[in-house]
Amino acid sequence: MIEKKVKIGNLYDFYGELLTDKQKDIVELFCLQDFTFGEISEELSVSRQAVFDTMKRVESILENYEKKLGLYAKFTQSKAYVKALLAEVETLRTSDVVQSDPTVAETVESIFQLTQKVLE
Amino acid sequence: MIEKKVKIGNLYDFYGELLTDKQKDIVELFCLQDFTFGEISEELSVSRQAVFDTMKRVESILENYEKKLGLYAKFTQSKAYVKALLAEVETLRTSDVVQSDPTVAETVESIFQLTQKVLE
Repeated sequence: MIEKKVKIGNLYDFYGELLTDKQKDIVELFCLQDFTFGEISEELSVSRQAVFDTMKRVESILENYEKKLGLYAKFTQSKAYVKALLAEVETLRTSDVVQSDPTVAETVESIFQLTQKVLE
Repeated sequence: MIEKKVKIGNLYDFYGELLTDKQKDIVELFCLQDFTFGEISEELSVSRQAVFDTMKRVESILENYEKKLGLYAKFTQSKAYVKALLAEVETLRTSDVVQSDPTVAETVESIFQLTQKVLE
């Protein structure tokens, strides 16, 4: 259940704006505020079944967008490379060889800053 | 007109799979194969007006997706940072200081490879 919540939350970050306001309200309570279906039902004055049905529908909609566009997978792969890159840059930053030369140290610092920006 | 073609082509790379097959055929002839509306009309045996109307509609659909999701803008910004990063890494790679230390040179090479992968 937690895995499903995380998966829906991740896809929602990408494609959430294509959902209706009602669907968005329910996903946000479920994924971001960690409400149970029962709590969402009370909060929004709708039946527990309606919450369940909406979440099923939302999951299918979001998965369908990802199946067609694959942008979440693409961004996730890219982010993994950038994180690996950041780890290497951090090693360079603390290297005595790099620190011994102000020009090289400055270039490494610039690479570090740019890597951070990509990850923002 | 060329700018519009490039813009539609870029958005099509991101959101094209959300169009119908008929819309996709027309966009591909227009943006990728550089056909005129007249040529597309002959190729697909539809009226020139139908080609024009479809392209108008497609432009609006693709722009609406981008307005809601902003993934093309996000990706383009990220790519610009990574390109700037690559330029800095290429400077490092040819630096005598870096080349003088095999461990540092290897780390820089690894950063270079990862940067290339992000750009793929």
